Amino acid sequence: MLARRKDEIALRVGRPVEVVAVSARDRTRNRDCDLSGVRWFEDAVELARDPDIDVFVELIGGHDGIARDAVEAAIASGHEVITANKALLAHHGVSLASGAEANGCNIYFEAAVAGGIPVIKALREALLGNEIARVSGILNGTCNYILTRMHEEGLSFDACLEQAQLLGYAEADPTFDVDGFDTAHKLSLLAALAFGVQPDPDAIHVEGIRSITLADLEAADELGYRIKLLGVAARAGAAVELRVHPTMVPKHWPIAQVSGVTNAVAIDGDAVALTLVGPGAGGDATASAVVGDICDIAAGKSGTPFGWKARDLRAAGKAAIQRHEGGYYIRLAAVDRPGTAAAIARHMAEQNISLESIMQHRRGRPHGGERAESAEAPAPVVLVTYATTEDAVRRAIAAIEIDGVIASPPQVIRIEKD
Amino acid sequence: MLARRKDEIALRVGRPVEVVAVSARDRTRNRDCDLSGVRWFEDAVELARDPDIDVFVELIGGHDGIARDAVEAAIASGHEVITANKALLAHHGVSLASGAEANGCNIYFEAAVAGGIPVIKALREALLGNEIARVSGILNGTCNYILTRMHEEGLSFDACLEQAQLLGYAEADPTFDVDGFDTAHKLSLLAALAFGVQPDPDAIHVEGIRSITLADLEAADELGYRIKLLGVAARAGAAVELRVHPTMVPKHWPIAQVSGVTNAVAIDGDAVALTLVGPGAGGDATASAVVGDICDIAAGKSGTPFGWKARDLRAAGKAAIQRHEGGYYIRLAAVDRPGTAAAIARHMAEQNISLESIMQHRRGRPHGGERAESAEAPAPVVLVTYATTEDAVRRAIAAIEIDGVIASPPQVIRIEKD
Repeated sequence: MLARRKDEIALRVGRPVEVVAVSARDRTRNRDCDLSGVRWFEDAVELARDPDIDVFVELIGGHDGIARDAVEAAIASGHEVITANKALLAHHGVSLASGAEANGCNIYFEAAVAGGIPVIKALREALLGNEIARVSGILNGTCNYILTRMHEEGLSFDACLEQAQLLGYAEADPTFDVDGFDTAHKLSLLAALAFGVQPDPDAIHVEGIRSITLADLEAADELGYRIKLLGVAARAGAAVELRVHPTMVPKHWPIAQVSGVTNAVAIDGDAVALTLVGPGAGGDATASAVVGDICDIAAGKSGTPFGWKARDLRAAGKAAIQRHEGGYYIRLAAVDRPGTAAAIARHMAEQNISLESIMQHRRGRPHGGERAESAEAPAPVVLVTYATTEDAVRRAIAAIEIDGVIASPPQVIRIEKD
Repeated sequence: MLARRKDEIALRVGRPVEVVAVSARDRTRNRDCDLSGVRWFEDAVELARDPDIDVFVELIGGHDGIARDAVEAAIASGHEVITANKALLAHHGVSLASGAEANGCNIYFEAAVAGGIPVIKALREALLGNEIARVSGILNGTCNYILTRMHEEGLSFDACLEQAQLLGYAEADPTFDVDGFDTAHKLSLLAALAFGVQPDPDAIHVEGIRSITLADLEAADELGYRIKLLGVAARAGAAVELRVHPTMVPKHWPIAQVSGVTNAVAIDGDAVALTLVGPGAGGDATASAVVGDICDIAAGKSGTPFGWKARDLRAAGKAAIQRHEGGYYIRLAAVDRPGTAAAIARHMAEQNISLESIMQHRRGRPHGGERAESAEAPAPVVLVTYATTEDAVRRAIAAIEIDGVIASPPQVIRIEKD
């Protein structure tokens, strides 16, 4: 990209941008670009310290080891750093930012969150006039691909995961993606920018998408929602609530309509609400974000990595999901015998939970997947609550389980609204 | 916004931002903010020249008169300028940009296009690594409101325009909005940023939405499209095609799903394709964009108004819509007598136009609105072509009209695709 756009970039940012040195694991690999005249370093740390570079671009990955060593070396040498490494910044963002400030340089990481979508720039610069209330995003293409395929083709989670693996959208070990950890890393960076909290993946309540069934997707559709794995950072009084979980999103939200591996971020400020949609991963998206950062540096821009001085970032604190307030979707496999409905209703009422809707399909419908073979077969019941607390929902469900009126653990999905 | 966010902005951009002087037509009007301690100028030009200001923010409007005089005075004094004035920049952008460069200052105009959506920043900075192929946008909330209401409620253009006027979304004289001129002004600025062409509204082919009927909206829905008033700037060989017109947009595009007064911009680069959705107008959106620009200036950023030096901007040249290539939707009120279908088909074939679909509903259906009262009543026929040229379509239609097989002028709507 830098070679192809050399003249235009020089013209537009006012100075040429040149790749002068490279380090990688394997020098012989064909990278489809001419590296003659570019110095080769066997050791990335040595390159990072090189006095002849202005900017060090780290595209290694991993929150420790060579990536961290090289970035720390670059900062210690006062070089500007660009990185696509969300894990590194999620785990060591505060100390790296402090180091950069002390050494008069900056860290750019547009490529680390939502790939080619300029959401870092939006939060760090464009929306400075806004007090942000919430940032929520589809930040993992693998999960969105799987949920989209399940919804559109009626396939199971396992079948869609397998397809994602075949297409290279998912790793052989998909844990990092499908269990929400990748989303959590990215969310921790967005939260720092939006709310001035220290990046800290451990402060985030994380649930993945393995539990989502076709019954849930179908019920969501009927209720006017789509199910997305969202990372959500939301102002909750003086605190910031940080959570990653499958979420019911109103169908008419732009973010609900984002399908496949595409990413999207919705930012709710007190002045404007934006949704940014674009590619979340891949070489082109990463290159676009990295080159954008390079151009910012070339144009002489200054600032701090997270838009706040490192010492001004507050600790996020562990999100107390029990205190989360919102609507809930609850799917129960209710045992079909007298008193079941009454027991469920009573335990909801005991926790002051008001129900917005109750959906019960005849047994044998696709919902729940069971066939009516006896009067005892579980009947899927879907409850949608008005705003309540996580705590109340969990208490009600515990009481219902003790009563023995449901045949399997209930499914609980949080609803996100305006 | 500056008062409310004073401390945070100072902390984040590294210096305080202070409103030191104001000028407006009416000093006595209640503006819900404390202007004590702020100097008042009866004359905006005098304020623009004041040596004690760093930044002059122009929110007057109009492409000549006081707005232009004041901006020119600010630039002559070397002050940074922020403006929400798309008309001013569309008409005088090149000379103002030249002046700013000569005086060592810059012009910021995030608020001038798509209000609170940071699309100027995206094109000027974030996407510098991309060669842009196309920028297309819903840039006028009035038109999108009207088209949305027509589609959702089956109301006529006139009825929806009247509602828009009652709600303050449309002016008493709606020409500037509904005939596409506002969109054209904004498009000329996006084209400058994306393609390095001089802003020039006269270089744009402009059509408004007055001709759109319910029959078109219903046919679009059946064919898998939404009709939006789009501004489109697209690379066409060495030239740039600039056009504003009602457009058939595939339903699954994020931009197709943007409803009401909301704006959206889709940017197709060679590395990434982005869609940005947000508020296009209103005090809050404008304030958000203006404050974002102020913060950029406060953070010491430099650059050029259009992302290129003024002298490097090429003339856009008048868009030759005859050479436009793409798919077309054509709705004909066909006279119902023997030979009509054959005549239409023959004239299309003579121009080498291939048809992707032909839709003919029985007379009396809502399409076209006519009732079948005689064998001669016109029957609405909808043709969708494969990619062809505007020229071919216009020739075919002229030939069909000469044949006398259609009862009223045909409706032609361009289709936008990937």
